[in-house]
This record gives sequence, structure tokens and C-alpha cells, in this order.
Amino acid sequence: MPIIILHQPQLGENIGAAARVMLNFGLTELRLVAPRDGWPNRAAVPMAAGAFEAGVTVTVFETAAAAIGDLGLVLAATARPRGLQKLVTDAGGGAGLIAARGLEAGVIFGAENHGLPSEVVALADVIMTYPVEPKFASLNLAQAVGVFCSNWGAVQGRQGRFEGADEGIEPPAPRDDLLRMFAHFEDELERAGYFYPPEKNDVMKNNLRTAFLRGSWTVQEVRTARQGAGRA
Amino acid sequence: MPIIILHQPQLGENIGAAARVMLNFGLTELRLVAPRDGWPNRAAVPMAAGAFEAGVTVTVFETAAAAIGDLGLVLAATARPRGLQKLVTDAGGGAGLIAARGLEAGVIFGAENHGLPSEVVALADVIMTYPVEPKFASLNLAQAVGVFCSNWGAVQGRQGRFEGADEGIEPPAPRDDLLRMFAHFEDELERAGYFYPPEKNDVMKNNLRTAFLRGSWTVQEVRTARQGAGRA
Repeated sequence: MPIIILHQPQLGENIGAAARVMLNFGLTELRLVAPRDGWPNRAAVPMAAGAFEAGVTVTVFETAAAAIGDLGLVLAATARPRGLQKLVTDAGGGAGLIAARGLEAGVIFGAENHGLPSEVVALADVIMTYPVEPKFASLNLAQAVGVFCSNWGAVQGRQGRFEGADEGIEPPAPRDDLLRMFAHFEDELERAGYFYPPEKNDVMKNNLRTAFLRGSWTVQEVRTARQGAGRA
Repeated sequence: MPIIILHQPQLGENIGAAARVMLNFGLTELRLVAPRDGWPNRAAVPMAAGAFEAGVTVTVFETAAAAIGDLGLVLAATARPRGLQKLVTDAGGGAGLIAARGLEAGVIFGAENHGLPSEVVALADVIMTYPVEPKFASLNLAQAVGVFCSNWGAVQGRQGRFEGADEGIEPPAPRDDLLRMFAHFEDELERAGYFYPPEKNDVMKNNLRTAFLRGSWTVQEVRTARQGAGRA
């Protein structure tokens, strides 16, 4: 599971918010390189929303080199060109690369005011950058962490899903049931003189059937509709 | 371009942070449904980091129905099951769907404390949910907006790229240059008695060549290396 590393972060609020979004997507190891206001930091607590108690661990290092010393793959998040000959990827590519390599991996993010120094980027294997608007390219630090973490969640194959439930849309009713429902409706409509002029009957019926089918009615919905239509 | 709608947001800070991350990924239309503290809200300013001045517009509505009245496609972001028979997708799927349909689309997010009420989810076409950790599923509101926005940026085909530059890794040197460099190195090493025992020469050379090739040396790097090796 990738490790998130914040290089010289300034605001405790951002450290807390980063921890929260890490745990939202299942990441639990946070490393801080020389945090400006030290660690622990009270300002981190409200934004973390309980993430530290719920599983995110924090380790403090003095240098970036020490913080990545045990890692086999390091990505550096940056929005600025560096003149360094390194592979460049985006958040989805970065998460995919980490999953594919199977190495102990870390993603390092720079400080709020000036990002990562080039000598830290130089220690990384790969540069990760996001598809940002060139004229408004600076993400909040915790948002930058969140973009990576959400891509990690997606790559893990945990499809968007509901908390504690497999709930999704039910399958549509069998085509037979739908056809019987259409026939029933069409009989009713015919009796009411709905299909006029007669030569357009087929086109109108096909269009109605198409619209109904697009709704993928379930068994229960078909049953409700047929009751409402007053079955003879 | 999709519209971001916040339903009864409580904290101005989150509205500002949402605006910032919207503009980071090129989105500019923000709608607020009955914001708790009214609008404008001073608390939004620092977290927006200039996003309102740089292009994000805000419109306030009294009801969700009014806020989505002109839209052809509405996604509701929620982490809780609803018992509603709606299609469910994740952030990448939601961004892709909006891009594919080409309709005026909106994504609506619920309040910090309890998310979207079911009667608002019922107004949407599709439910969007994220691959979150079931035991720690509640994202910060602006982070939830950010996850969608970053996926929108990715779907737009704006690959991760650098601000104002096409910079990336240079192509590797032509294979000929590399082979000449290898031959040169190997001559030097042979003279220094490096290859021992002789019957392992070929294996050692193949392994060295493989390691060098993996680095995808550029023309400039090959040139530097050959100068350093003191060409005869």
C-alpha cells in the first residue's frame, strides 16, 4: 500500500485533511519531512475527522532522503517543469504503476507555498502531475493528496460502492413481462382512441415501446404498473 | 462543462475550497442551494485562493429542483444506499458519462453533516459514489468535489502535464549510439581485467547492457558518458 509523504508541510490543517482523505481510500501510512510547526500539531485534529485514531500512522523524518530510504519506488507530485529526464505520469498512471510493480512505494508532495525542491524531485523515479488548468494550476495540498488517493482506490478495483451494502439497480424484468405490459397498455390506449391516424399505429407503438424499454423497468415496477392499469 | 451544485452547504471554507479545485480542473459554474450562512460568505475567500476572481461564478437557488431545472443530466453524489432504482457509477464513470452524452449536466453534492436527502437523490438520473473504505467513508465536501473534478480533467484528455510547457522525458538515443557506447565501455573494462572468468564474459555483458538500456539514456547522456570515459 503506497505511503504518502509530505515534504515540509506548513499547515496542520492540511496534514489533518490529507490523513482523512488517505483513510477514505484505504491508505494508512503518512510520513512528514520536517513539518514547519512540528508534530503532533493540534491544528491537524479537526480536519482529520478522527483519521489518526481510526488507523493513519504518522512518522516524522528530518530529510526527504531518510523518508524514502526504505522504498523501492518513489513518485514525486509536481506541477512545475524541472528539466529532469524522468518519466511523467498522471494520478491514474501513478496508482496503476504502483499496483503493477508491487514494490514498497511512496508518493511525495511538496509544501503549500513552493512545492517540491528540485533536489527532492531528483530522488524520485517518476514525476506525477495532474491535468490542471494552466492558469490556475496550484491545488490545495490535501486536495493533491486526495486526487492520488482516489485513483489508488479506483485502481484497487474497489468500484464505487455503497457503505456496507451491495445495493445497486435491480435487473430489468424479463422481456416477456415487458411485452405483456406493452400489449396491455396498447390495448387500453387503442380502446381510448389514442392511436390516430391508424396508418401510424406501428410507428407510434415502436416509439412508445422504445421509451418504456429505456427505463429498464423492474419486475416490481411492472407489477405496480399493471395493477394501476386495472387488469381486466 | 458540468456544473457543480452544493446542496445546503454549511461551511464557507468548503465552498471556497470547492471553487478552487473546480477551477484547478477547468470547471467554472458553481450553484448553491440554500447555503446555511448565505452568500457571499467571507469564510469562503481564503480557501478559494482567488478562484472566484479567476473565473468561478456562483448562483444561489432556494431549492434543488430550481438548481437543476435547466439540466439534461444530473448526477447525485452519495455514499449511502437509498433503496432507489437508479444507475450507480463512480467518479470516472460519471465524468465519462457526462462527456459522452453531451448534455448540460450537473453534479450535486450534499451537506457536510448528512449528505443529500433522498428526495434530492430521487431527482437525479444517476448516482455517483466513490470506492471508499466502508469504515471511514465520509469525505470532506470539497474533497468529494475534487475527486469528481480531477476525473473530469482526466476524461477531457488533458493528460497530466506541466504548466506552460510540453516538457517531458527526451527520447532515448538511437540504438546505434548506445551500442557504440557499450562497445567502448566493454573495451575499457576488458582492458582493466573486469571480465573474469572469461567463460562468463557474454553473460556479464548482456546483463550490463540490459541494465544500461533500462535507463533509456538520451543522446546528451551518451555524449557525456563517452567524454568521461576518455575516448581514444
